[in-house]
Amino acid sequence: MKGFLFKGMAAGIKKDGSPDLGIIYSRRPAEAAALFTRNRVVAAPVVLGRERMKSGLCQAIVVNSGNANCFTGEQGIKDARKTAEMTAGLLGIPQELVMVSSTGVIGAPLPMDLFKAALPRLVEDLSEDGLEDFATAILTTDTDMKISSHTCTIHGSSFSIVGVAKGSGMIRPDMATMLAYVLTDLDIPARILKSFLQKGCDRTFNRITVDGDTSTNDTLVALANGMSQVALEDSDDSLEFQRCLDRVLMDLAEAVVRDGEGATKMARINVRGALTREDAYLVAQAVSHSNLVKTAIYGEDPNWGRVVAAAGRSGAVVEPEKIGLYFDEVCLVKDGQWLGPDAEKEAARVMKQPEMTIGLDLNLGEFQDTYLFCDFSEDYVKINADYRS
Amino acid sequence: MKGFLFKGMAAGIKKDGSPDLGIIYSRRPAEAAALFTRNRVVAAPVVLGRERMKSGLCQAIVVNSGNANCFTGEQGIKDARKTAEMTAGLLGIPQELVMVSSTGVIGAPLPMDLFKAALPRLVEDLSEDGLEDFATAILTTDTDMKISSHTCTIHGSSFSIVGVAKGSGMIRPDMATMLAYVLTDLDIPARILKSFLQKGCDRTFNRITVDGDTSTNDTLVALANGMSQVALEDSDDSLEFQRCLDRVLMDLAEAVVRDGEGATKMARINVRGALTREDAYLVAQAVSHSNLVKTAIYGEDPNWGRVVAAAGRSGAVVEPEKIGLYFDEVCLVKDGQWLGPDAEKEAARVMKQPEMTIGLDLNLGEFQDTYLFCDFSEDYVKINADYRS
Repeated sequence: MKGFLFKGMAAGIKKDGSPDLGIIYSRRPAEAAALFTRNRVVAAPVVLGRERMKSGLCQAIVVNSGNANCFTGEQGIKDARKTAEMTAGLLGIPQELVMVSSTGVIGAPLPMDLFKAALPRLVEDLSEDGLEDFATAILTTDTDMKISSHTCTIHGSSFSIVGVAKGSGMIRPDMATMLAYVLTDLDIPARILKSFLQKGCDRTFNRITVDGDTSTNDTLVALANGMSQVALEDSDDSLEFQRCLDRVLMDLAEAVVRDGEGATKMARINVRGALTREDAYLVAQAVSHSNLVKTAIYGEDPNWGRVVAAAGRSGAVVEPEKIGLYFDEVCLVKDGQWLGPDAEKEAARVMKQPEMTIGLDLNLGEFQDTYLFCDFSEDYVKINADYRS
Repeated sequence: MKGFLFKGMAAGIKKDGSPDLGIIYSRRPAEAAALFTRNRVVAAPVVLGRERMKSGLCQAIVVNSGNANCFTGEQGIKDARKTAEMTAGLLGIPQELVMVSSTGVIGAPLPMDLFKAALPRLVEDLSEDGLEDFATAILTTDTDMKISSHTCTIHGSSFSIVGVAKGSGMIRPDMATMLAYVLTDLDIPARILKSFLQKGCDRTFNRITVDGDTSTNDTLVALANGMSQVALEDSDDSLEFQRCLDRVLMDLAEAVVRDGEGATKMARINVRGALTREDAYLVAQAVSHSNLVKTAIYGEDPNWGRVVAAAGRSGAVVEPEKIGLYFDEVCLVKDGQWLGPDAEKEAARVMKQPEMTIGLDLNLGEFQDTYLFCDFSEDYVKINADYRS
């Protein structure tokens, strides 16, 4: 991918000395679009980011982990601005073209002395090969970096899309989720880029959950610097770009779920036959957020009654006697009738795999929806009971 | 309390041989009111119960644990009717006066042969001293029976209210929750009893959560047999009765939360200063259902940012710079400002207690609400991953 440089390093923000500061830099100001958390309590970088994204231009993004710069009042906003200003000075670009993101503990002030000490080296060491360093520096409870890269071809010309994300807990999107950055050397205006990003996000990040908590810092940014000199010319091109973008976003979304705090398995709930679009969404959401369904998946127990009960409380129209329920290809319930212990034994076999799909057919209408989620283990509790200690 | 008899025994429905069948019997047909689950998937006994409660009269309730008789189709309804019919025959009363409840695993047919064998002995052994046997027989993952008993005095005359409940997981009311039976020898018509019950339920059972899942079998029944020969005469009497009823219901609700699956601590969220009644409810609900808040309480970590973040995503109007936050009497956040590490140390001390209150003042309006909940430990996962094995 042309024209993007990266770097990641340990600046001392995390107490354990692991990498915690990263930067993305485009050789040219890039067309920029972003989606932010819908939480009413938002971190300072989100306030600043919303303001800066209005111009549709961005050239650098500085990201720290270990501190969310959230619920830090006026000082938090000042610190976010100051970080952007220092970075812009070092890069020799206008500070309006620098965006910042933060992730970590809520409430503590940003350690500005550490930023001041680290930023010069961060900028100096920018490199086309720095992506993995960057991807590592933005992690918190994640166990691994999350990168997806695809090459698109239209009219015989190629351009690239690279995505990088962090996220493992406090995952219930509702807009964008976690921190995710999508970079492309395609030539595309910010306004158009945003509509692609919104569509892609609805199908991917807005259909995953780990624990049902929406973060105060969720941010998804897309930058397009045009340096491939490839542009979209017709609707076929648009379809191809959306397809590639969705693939990168879905790769990242799946990586987040797979790396869900304490997760041992990934699951997908496919709701079909709902009376309305909203009903399909409600059922998919209720099942994927049910702690009882998630612990049953962890225990490899085909306790399908919990899936049906979650659907029943979702608020959607559900008629028990019409329900069909599948674990992968194994049918457990048909026309509301349980198919017996043999079917359940088959379903137990399905559950031993690292991934499974729950198919729930309401048999009431035309609408469907899908949610990606993970199981729920003792380790989720351990990780979150001890997060700050 | 006059005129109520009880019994509980092991009928072999639970594989481990523990008590699983109970009965409540009133010497006279009692005025009866009930509230049932709002889940769209409801168990057969709930279908039958809704039908039978229309008459406002009930004389006996048969309850089994170990099997929910839910998602069991037409056969489930027949089995529920048959259970009532057999019991009525043994008691020599009309079968329309018998109600049944079931709790346990969803989807398996009721083992009618075991009911047929056990019911004669259950009826034969009815006794005024059988309440604890009954309370034990209706438990599932509960670790202890839940009974509350109060004596009310109006105009110098006394009557009693006794409540008994089961519930530990799949607790998120939204109407009634779990199985709960409130018995009184007060003389009160069913229609009036129902309005008292509804009010009391909204303040108690509808304000607790363990895991956010609503059961398919939730049932709250009140029986009043009039045998104290005390009746309500004026509004002061009504207030006194509501007060006593609420106290019994709250005792049971608290017992359910305290016995929440895997729970080690109980917590209360008091939301004040909300802009609307709905907003107060939304915030209390979001905080009490947040797995991140619940694991922080388990870990005794004053991670107040999670409380604020949950409030922010609740859908209610929240202005971060106005928020006040307290753990018991310790103020952590005032006018949106974090009070620093010393306050947090104090808050950590509060969290070491078995019970705590989170006070969240939105400082926007007049409305308040309260939710009772428990923490979230590794044991919740263990209990629910292995429930059926």
